[in-house]
Amino acid sequence: MAKEGAENAQETQNMIKNDRKEHRSRMSAGNTTEMRAVVLTGFGGLNKLRVTKRPMPEPQEGEVKIHVKACGLNFLDLMVRQGNIDNPPKTPLVPGFECSGIVEEMGNNTKGFEIGDRVMAFVNYNAWAEVVCTSIEFVYKIPDDMTFPEAAAFSLNFVAAYIMLFELASLREGMSVLVHSVGGAVGQAVAQLCSTIPSVMVFGTASPSKNEAIKDSVTHLFDRSADYVQEVKKISPEGVDIVLDCLCGENTGKGLGLLKPLGTYILYGSSNMVTGETKSFFSLAKSWWQMDKVNPIKLYEENKVIAGFSLLNLLFKQGRGSLVKTVVQKLFSLYNQKKIKPRVDSLWALEEVKEAMQRIHERGNIGKLILDMEKSPTPLMANDSTETSEAGDDDDDDDDEEEHEDNNDNKERIPFIQ
Amino acid sequence: MAKEGAENAQETQNMIKNDRKEHRSRMSAGNTTEMRAVVLTGFGGLNKLRVTKRPMPEPQEGEVKIHVKACGLNFLDLMVRQGNIDNPPKTPLVPGFECSGIVEEMGNNTKGFEIGDRVMAFVNYNAWAEVVCTSIEFVYKIPDDMTFPEAAAFSLNFVAAYIMLFELASLREGMSVLVHSVGGAVGQAVAQLCSTIPSVMVFGTASPSKNEAIKDSVTHLFDRSADYVQEVKKISPEGVDIVLDCLCGENTGKGLGLLKPLGTYILYGSSNMVTGETKSFFSLAKSWWQMDKVNPIKLYEENKVIAGFSLLNLLFKQGRGSLVKTVVQKLFSLYNQKKIKPRVDSLWALEEVKEAMQRIHERGNIGKLILDMEKSPTPLMANDSTETSEAGDDDDDDDDEEEHEDNNDNKERIPFIQ
Repeated sequence: MAKEGAENAQETQNMIKNDRKEHRSRMSAGNTTEMRAVVLTGFGGLNKLRVTKRPMPEPQEGEVKIHVKACGLNFLDLMVRQGNIDNPPKTPLVPGFECSGIVEEMGNNTKGFEIGDRVMAFVNYNAWAEVVCTSIEFVYKIPDDMTFPEAAAFSLNFVAAYIMLFELASLREGMSVLVHSVGGAVGQAVAQLCSTIPSVMVFGTASPSKNEAIKDSVTHLFDRSADYVQEVKKISPEGVDIVLDCLCGENTGKGLGLLKPLGTYILYGSSNMVTGETKSFFSLAKSWWQMDKVNPIKLYEENKVIAGFSLLNLLFKQGRGSLVKTVVQKLFSLYNQKKIKPRVDSLWALEEVKEAMQRIHERGNIGKLILDMEKSPTPLMANDSTETSEAGDDDDDDDDEEEHEDNNDNKERIPFIQ
Repeated sequence: MAKEGAENAQETQNMIKNDRKEHRSRMSAGNTTEMRAVVLTGFGGLNKLRVTKRPMPEPQEGEVKIHVKACGLNFLDLMVRQGNIDNPPKTPLVPGFECSGIVEEMGNNTKGFEIGDRVMAFVNYNAWAEVVCTSIEFVYKIPDDMTFPEAAAFSLNFVAAYIMLFELASLREGMSVLVHSVGGAVGQAVAQLCSTIPSVMVFGTASPSKNEAIKDSVTHLFDRSADYVQEVKKISPEGVDIVLDCLCGENTGKGLGLLKPLGTYILYGSSNMVTGETKSFFSLAKSWWQMDKVNPIKLYEENKVIAGFSLLNLLFKQGRGSLVKTVVQKLFSLYNQKKIKPRVDSLWALEEVKEAMQRIHERGNIGKLILDMEKSPTPLMANDSTETSEAGDDDDDDDDEEEHEDNNDNKERIPFIQ
């Protein structure tokens, strides 16, 4: 079912050629009516992604226009690609929720910003493009010594980690935190933020392959296939104060069980929900339906707290931009004090978005994957594709239950932000 | 079914006579082997309560012996009387979870305390007695100008209110809080603690009869039979940051619905569970079973937090005495700054415990009911009993579904602490 790596490599090469042609043409002709962007032509596999021209966006009232330098990739982007989200927007669409770059134009009522400002920004889709327009509510001037890839790696992950640790839970000296997929971008942000508070013990789960790279970022690291409940209890029989869980399903009960009294379990997404690249709406709905519900009486008897967290909902559905602005300022202060630093896994050219997505899918990353607008694609050898699969059909059949990939139960899961 | 007021009054008179005889006999003979206590002879109605002699307790290792001056009554004590709690202890037992008084003897390893110390204390039953022994983990020296009734009104209510507002939720400037039964002792403690933080808006529900007495303690007061969801939304369309709910049942869904994003709903008990004085285990189990469970996915989509809180479990099952010590010190500091002051509804002699319980049952109180060891019972007229009912039979039939009392749906519910 899966296409050969060679075919994918060829596609990438074609992308690169088209891209260069477009770029040259825009630059030489001073083309301001079009820009390059990653376009999702329909929900499905990697073959639904194209780098192509799109109309140049113009800033509306309250918006700035950003010349994008770098964009962040999240697990959520894979779910968007598959249409595995609530109320998916119509395709074709430009994916992406975060970017960094330089302000190049401003709409009315954008006080506080100037052309040339180095910024990072959230955007409700449309981030994976050369140019992005978004409300100044979601734009933040970055510190002078923060690189654009760092800024794109900073936004969603550190803001999410901060709100979970300090707004939903109240991380304090001497507490303990369990974070799943600690090798991922949110996991690494959580570990770094925990290290800013004295005597915080961090338990992390990750795939054994990441052990060497991340073992210094946590107090105790467990193989994700190990019985982490038992491992944690061996070290801390009373359990932990905070559990951050992107895994969902059976882990909710386990996570609640591991909490100390007055402890907080936070569910911030579920990478378990997408175990195969073509997992459909139907099977998604099933897994959500089956998720254990929580009895408030049990919380009462055990003095426990359960919270859910979706940063994008907070920003784009619930109008909490001002809270996030405050959080970003606190994070920049920590960055300036060199207490935190976003961990970038790898930089990818826009045309390499498929390979980047595949790396996230395979949970190979340690820290954040970045689309770097200034990077040229690395030419691929015919047999040098990391891609192993993609949906072979172009329809969006919701009942498609085929699994195009190997069982990846043993692969590292990384969190996504939504 | 209910006994006549005259009969209850006679019982109380008999209690008083016995009590005085005992007290005189202990005092004159220097009797140190016995003490007076309220004894629950079996689970059931008010007629299961006696004031009688009990063996004098002696302090064990780590315990102090307290000459009790005042004890607090809680809604929970009614549930204990009826046996409507998980794993009820065996009867006969001495009820009561909090008292204040003077240290009169010490066991080994009680460093930090001295004979003559004025203290308040938690105890896992046995508080309603002349003498109480409890671990120093649960004993706190009180400020010099705090009266014993104030101290007994302070302990459970203010500690519970503080932990809920500041440990489980993170009450901050500008937030809004909805508290049910704001006329009760916890409700009044919540209102006072909210007033220590700038610009906190407090919505309270209470019975209209309490309006005049408590309207100044909250920002907006609603009749408890009103549609409080609509009332709150009229004033704060976005909802509130914190909901404190002792009502349970249908209110959980309503409370969650009223939360702003990142808001916290705290369930700290359910006075709905006991709507009639003889509501049995069976009907209790039913109402818990029927309680709505919470879908974590919904919390995730809406960015909401749900917490349960039981102070007694925290103290006596979960070993969090040291946290509570810290909280008590913070509360005493607020008391010394005259920012908070426990509100005492009324003082009752030990022999008046039935009348006091009846007042709680009828939700007539504003603030805390106190058993004052130094108060002499007020002689009752034959037709001056506030009692309207009591279980007529002596057995503990779990399936007894009889309702001995009028429907009290329109009565004020006050919170209980467990």
